[in-house]
Amino acid sequence: MKKTMTLIAAVTLSIMTFAQQPGRTPVSSPVVNSDNTVTFKFVAPNAKNVKINAQFAPTTNMFKGENGVWSITLGPVVPDIYPYCFIVDGVSVMDPLNPEWFPNEKFKNSLVDIRVKDGSLQDLLNVPHGKIDYVYYPSQAQSLEARAIVYTPPFYDKNKKEQYPVFYLISGTTDTEEVYFKVGRVNYILDNLIAQGKAKPMIVVMPYGNPSLYMQNNGVQPKGMDVFTSDVLNDLMPFIEKNYRTINDREYRGIGGFSRGGNQGLAIGLGNLDRFSYLCSYSSFTGTNIPGVFDNADQTNSKINLFWLGVGLDDFLYGNAKDFMDFLDEKGIKNTKVFTEGKHGHTWMNARYFLFETLPLLFQK
Amino acid sequence: MKKTMTLIAAVTLSIMTFAQQPGRTPVSSPVVNSDNTVTFKFVAPNAKNVKINAQFAPTTNMFKGENGVWSITLGPVVPDIYPYCFIVDGVSVMDPLNPEWFPNEKFKNSLVDIRVKDGSLQDLLNVPHGKIDYVYYPSQAQSLEARAIVYTPPFYDKNKKEQYPVFYLISGTTDTEEVYFKVGRVNYILDNLIAQGKAKPMIVVMPYGNPSLYMQNNGVQPKGMDVFTSDVLNDLMPFIEKNYRTINDREYRGIGGFSRGGNQGLAIGLGNLDRFSYLCSYSSFTGTNIPGVFDNADQTNSKINLFWLGVGLDDFLYGNAKDFMDFLDEKGIKNTKVFTEGKHGHTWMNARYFLFETLPLLFQK
Repeated sequence: MKKTMTLIAAVTLSIMTFAQQPGRTPVSSPVVNSDNTVTFKFVAPNAKNVKINAQFAPTTNMFKGENGVWSITLGPVVPDIYPYCFIVDGVSVMDPLNPEWFPNEKFKNSLVDIRVKDGSLQDLLNVPHGKIDYVYYPSQAQSLEARAIVYTPPFYDKNKKEQYPVFYLISGTTDTEEVYFKVGRVNYILDNLIAQGKAKPMIVVMPYGNPSLYMQNNGVQPKGMDVFTSDVLNDLMPFIEKNYRTINDREYRGIGGFSRGGNQGLAIGLGNLDRFSYLCSYSSFTGTNIPGVFDNADQTNSKINLFWLGVGLDDFLYGNAKDFMDFLDEKGIKNTKVFTEGKHGHTWMNARYFLFETLPLLFQK
Repeated sequence: MKKTMTLIAAVTLSIMTFAQQPGRTPVSSPVVNSDNTVTFKFVAPNAKNVKINAQFAPTTNMFKGENGVWSITLGPVVPDIYPYCFIVDGVSVMDPLNPEWFPNEKFKNSLVDIRVKDGSLQDLLNVPHGKIDYVYYPSQAQSLEARAIVYTPPFYDKNKKEQYPVFYLISGTTDTEEVYFKVGRVNYILDNLIAQGKAKPMIVVMPYGNPSLYMQNNGVQPKGMDVFTSDVLNDLMPFIEKNYRTINDREYRGIGGFSRGGNQGLAIGLGNLDRFSYLCSYSSFTGTNIPGVFDNADQTNSKINLFWLGVGLDDFLYGNAKDFMDFLDEKGIKNTKVFTEGKHGHTWMNARYFLFETLPLLFQK
């Protein structure tokens, strides 16, 4: 027993030593204060200049304090989830103390979540939860085992006979397949909307939108620009419909996406109206040309239950999006347009807001 | 049609502009070369010194080339998955060009995967795949909605009547609940072992090992040191057994973990031998004192199907682990000891190797 007690003492000491950084006061970052200001800290004793680059404010210098801890308090900030990073002598750095991050192929940002007191649609609240699955499927188009993320709604595993509509949801340029989960929080948003009776329980499928890079990283030579479309239609969809209780009918399938993903979604959806009837374009590059679709408005309109396009007035793609909307109107293609203001342009604050707006509209016809 | 074509041209241009960083040659990092050397690149025109800190080599200076691109080629490297970061004028930075990362509360590392030609147990191979679920459950112990990760084996959703054993698997200090998935690759390893007939199909549950921090980050005041134990036994286990097809019997439950997680696993397992019979300690802080367990060897031995302890000879915890093994031997508690050499001490290269060794031993009695 005596030896055991010695061991416990040794372990306690080791854990403490391991957890603390000697000679440093424990530092937390970010800290959201009760007045919705946010305090950021970064330890860099030898840096000459540290800036905070948060998507709710202009890039701002931080101040060096004791023990090489740079800090700044910004705000009050309008509650939302914002990407940010530090810029240390010109180099972008994630917040090392924050495990919440923005998955991306090109940049590394952390996420700070400033919540409203009573909870918002994008919070993890005390409601029945769906779950997120990371799935792996053999992809002929990619010549490898590909991956995707799938949301199943609350009680999916209980209601074993129920079948569900499916929404295919594609992230933007340089995003990975994780972004609509980790940043877009489509799972929390749907859990909350379903709990409020405002959205139909549905399955959401999130593919990786840039298979060429994924293939390169896995030693496979990309074959062409249409790998993604081929993968979604011929590999991913059959896998999903085999492994999930989907309603396999165009009336119960939707597709949409953010930025480049919106363009991919429209291309696949409009090009396959025998399979999809709900289309959502979020801050997208738009301009897909599908033979026969735009020149036969009556037929096209009869096949589409929802053609929804949203863009921020301050989005750098606003001009492009507006041109496309005008083009659709000119052609007589029915569509719903939403313009946001003050949602920070081409950002995921906007992308989440578009989910709030559109998920309740899906599969209601 | 003409307008559509103009739109397409505009979109193509936008995508190109958006994807490229003006004035820079496209840079890829890391690149694993055919001779198993690895080339790392980092763009930092104004940095004075850039080092690469990879867990397979001593920290090494990189060299500045054209356009502010620092680079170095290291190796050949023994195939494995290694964490690394750049050190830019003294500041640790993830590789901005690499989306594979190490989830952690305190540091930010990227991951480089040097594969063996024919695939290893930790690769995503063309075999039947299980899936990873991110689940959310109400935790009384934490006073909030908590989260965990669950692996279900291949065909879990098909074999609707089959029940499975469960292995609770806990990451180490400062790791998040994602580490045994993202870094430990327990899902790929089990998929491959099961395909080879070397491991029993099982469910693996990965809780977040540091609920106090999770609670703090979610505005809840931690109540004490035993939140984790209480959460696992009274919140997480009932949730899992309600929502998954588990065999609810001590003969079909195991628990284990890496580093601090190993100590947590042994504390819960040894303290609840009415619920667990397989115990695994991977590079752990060890020294758990459970009243009655160590002083009644015959009774204790009769309840344990596997008591497995592994540690690297060059692990900084080797002395502690060896003391505990000696103590167990002295007390007559049966156990299996494995010592690794050249697996980089207290690292996830070792942690994965321990999965290779132990997953085939679980639930075989």
